[in-house]
Amino acid sequence: MTDRWGRAGVVRMRVDLIAAQSIDGFITKHEQAGTGFTSEADRAHFASLLDGYDCSVMGATTFEASRTFICERLTRRRLRVVLTRRADAFADLTVDGELEFSGSDPRDLVNKLSRRGYRRCALLGGSQVHALFLGSDLVDRLVLTVEGRIFGEGRPLAPGRWDLRFTLERASALGPETALLEFRRRGA
Amino acid sequence: MTDRWGRAGVVRMRVDLIAAQSIDGFITKHEQAGTGFTSEADRAHFASLLDGYDCSVMGATTFEASRTFICERLTRRRLRVVLTRRADAFADLTVDGELEFSGSDPRDLVNKLSRRGYRRCALLGGSQVHALFLGSDLVDRLVLTVEGRIFGEGRPLAPGRWDLRFTLERASALGPETALLEFRRRGA
Repeated sequence: MTDRWGRAGVVRMRVDLIAAQSIDGFITKHEQAGTGFTSEADRAHFASLLDGYDCSVMGATTFEASRTFICERLTRRRLRVVLTRRADAFADLTVDGELEFSGSDPRDLVNKLSRRGYRRCALLGGSQVHALFLGSDLVDRLVLTVEGRIFGEGRPLAPGRWDLRFTLERASALGPETALLEFRRRGA
Repeated sequence: MTDRWGRAGVVRMRVDLIAAQSIDGFITKHEQAGTGFTSEADRAHFASLLDGYDCSVMGATTFEASRTFICERLTRRRLRVVLTRRADAFADLTVDGELEFSGSDPRDLVNKLSRRGYRRCALLGGSQVHALFLGSDLVDRLVLTVEGRIFGEGRPLAPGRWDLRFTLERASALGPETALLEFRRRGA
């Protein structure tokens, strides 16, 4: 059995983009970094959801916004990979199998992690990382919290010029102001 | 009984913003005007939904995009109002009670229509009209079709800098690629 790149014996891990956004598609409120705008319902959902993943990938800005929180909670149950052009600058924070820094392109990173046996990857932002993975057709599912807010300005879900198509897997209420939408990549 | 502006005897009509958007909050695909990107499921939903409204309001660009379609289907069952700074230029298209052109500000327009007895208004876009009505706190509900697509570029749902909050009324599947989200203005 070969994988989609024609290599035998390696199963490509599944990549789920997990994000919270306003109704109008912004993952930050205006220029405020982080997800401080999210509801209690989303925070509980997000924490429980992450338990289902054996690795996660995020950009350096996303990492920096939660650095202390992350570094205090390292675990072998879920490898965190920070995608950054300055991987060397973070060398002293590295804990193999728990917190790693990589300058790989997304496809190489997914291949490497798959070969190491990781099976389910949570893609945790931000915008640029979403765009990198979507642009390389590496996102299998979108798990989107939609908060009942309109911001008009902020970081977009995925900057670029796309026409990407997804199948709806689930639309449900997560809380009094909050919807949960799950989409699967078409053909996935 | 007085209404929220303190006038007696007039019930302000309800205004529902009805739009279709991509997952990432764009109501057009890139610079392509209109809603050609919407699914069959949305088109059926939209046509049936409109039956519940006795008037609708749209901007001049939205009107121009469907002008022939609209002018062939005029009916007293639903007044169409086109909001435009050039109302005079459309004088010969006017059919009182069926198709009217107005340069009123949104609040005055809603008051005038309410006094004429209209009760349920569908706000049909585009972006600028959404922003005008949201900015005047005149939108009671959002009825949003979310198509399973990511565009990255296009007309935003509501250009501006906002922090508007809504309560979720409904999240459901409308079709294989399409979700329906309904929100109510907080406090409405």
